[in-house]
Parts: sequence; structure tokens; C-alpha cells
Amino acid sequence: MAHDHCVFCAITRGEVEASLVYEDDDIVAFTDHAPVTPGHLLVVPRRHATGLEDLTDEDGARVWRVAHLLGRALRRSPLRCEGVNFFLADGEAAFQEVFHVHLHVFPRFAGDTFRISADWRIRPRAELDDSAAAVRAGLAALAPKRYP
Amino acid sequence: MAHDHCVFCAITRGEVEASLVYEDDDIVAFTDHAPVTPGHLLVVPRRHATGLEDLTDEDGARVWRVAHLLGRALRRSPLRCEGVNFFLADGEAAFQEVFHVHLHVFPRFAGDTFRISADWRIRPRAELDDSAAAVRAGLAALAPKRYP
Repeated sequence: MAHDHCVFCAITRGEVEASLVYEDDDIVAFTDHAPVTPGHLLVVPRRHATGLEDLTDEDGARVWRVAHLLGRALRRSPLRCEGVNFFLADGEAAFQEVFHVHLHVFPRFAGDTFRISADWRIRPRAELDDSAAAVRAGLAALAPKRYP
Repeated sequence: MAHDHCVFCAITRGEVEASLVYEDDDIVAFTDHAPVTPGHLLVVPRRHATGLEDLTDEDGARVWRVAHLLGRALRRSPLRCEGVNFFLADGEAAFQEVFHVHLHVFPRFAGDTFRISADWRIRPRAELDDSAAAVRAGLAALAPKRYP
């Protein structure tokens, strides 16, 4: 299950140094070595999965639960934390850099340097409806019987 | 439970127009009206929660499960999708704009306009260890007995 050359697998096995904040039988969470803000964490499943495609439902839900816990913990920590972001990158086109699925959890505060940008414009309903129909087609392709 | 002036509560009740892609007894998912890319979705719990603080563990896990499903559906849809991002903004400092908790799920592809930026620098281990200790203090403040 573990991948020999995966740095996050090595961290979960304790073979590569990391600053751990949480671990249980399934999940490990540690600081990102290049944090957006102090307290930037990565939540990873011990069982190697590259991304959303091979991550099990159960491990996914576990990743979320630990992230939810840590998001609340950040607000109770001595770190600056006026808000919290979760970010997950699935695939190189989505800025994934380590190919062991991980959920970023990081504190935010006024004056921090994190920014996002995009071509945000309100779109006509017909265009949004077309996108929604396309997503429903994807759902049907995924599991035609479970999601009628 | 529902908040009269919350637009996402109104959407979950069918009182405000939205392009739905998924709904069940607990969760509704629909297109963002100002999408980062076509197929940009918001996953929201029917039960109003402002953010991570008042979101129940169960509703949080349900939000994740639907997001996980939709992330996989996007890759099987006719939309351009070479990668997927999840993003959650908890609090104004974290860029939350609608104060009903929601998880963004959006497709990514080469040449799209979504960008993130921050002061990413690898930090010394001592600094990361200090941050980790602060997070563990937050965990202890949150639930001293559950997370020893």
C-alpha cells in the first residue's frame, strides 16, 4: 500500500522529519514546510492514494473529520487565526505537487499574503444550467444507479 | 434552523433559483453563479451553519462525501476537467462571502484563469515545530480528553 518513493508515506511511517500535530490509526497531520501562514497544516491518510479517484470514501471522510477538528483547534491556538481555509489540489492542473492526497488547512488573518484570483463574472442562468446538466451526466456515468 | 435571510437556505428550500446538480435529505449542491471555471459547484448542508464552528461533525462528513463524489463526476462529465480543487473559506478573513458554510468544488484545466499566491518559503524546522506546538495547544483547549 505504501509507496517507497512517496515523501508523505515516509512521513506517516516516521522516516522523514515532520512537525506532527495529530495522528491516529488512519490519519496523520503535520505542518507544511512552506506555510502560507504559521500553522499551515496538511492532513493525509496513512494509506497511499494519489488523489480523489483512488481515495476511499472512508479515508476521505476521515481526512475531513481531522481537518474540521484542526480548523477549530487553530482558532483556539496562540497562532494568529481570524479565519481558516481548506484547500485540496487533485491533479497537476489543479496545482497538486505531492501525489499523495492531502487537504491543506491554514489560518488566515488580516494582512496575510494569501490571495486567490480568477475570472469571476456572474454567468447567465442558461450557461449555469448547461454546466449543471454536464455535471449530472458525469454523476450518471459514475454511478447510474446510486444517483438517479 | 433555517435563516430567513440566508440565500443558501433559500436555495435549499427551492425559493431562490439555482442550477442544482445533487440533493439528498441533508445536502444540496449547485453551480456557483460566478464560476472560476464551468462546472464550479458549491456543496452546502441543508441545516444552516455559519462555518466550521457550528457545523456538526455529521453534516461536515456529508459535505465531504458529496464533494468527493462530485469531484469524481466532474472528471467523467463533458466539461473540461484535468484536475479538481476543493476550497472552503471559514470567516471573512479567509474570503468567506456567504455565511452559510459551503465547500467549493471546481474543475481545472491548462490555461484556466484560477491562481493562488502567497509568501511560500521553506521555514526552519524550529519554526515549524513551534507552530505545531501551538496547534496542539489549540487541540488541547478544544478537547483535552479526546485528543491527548
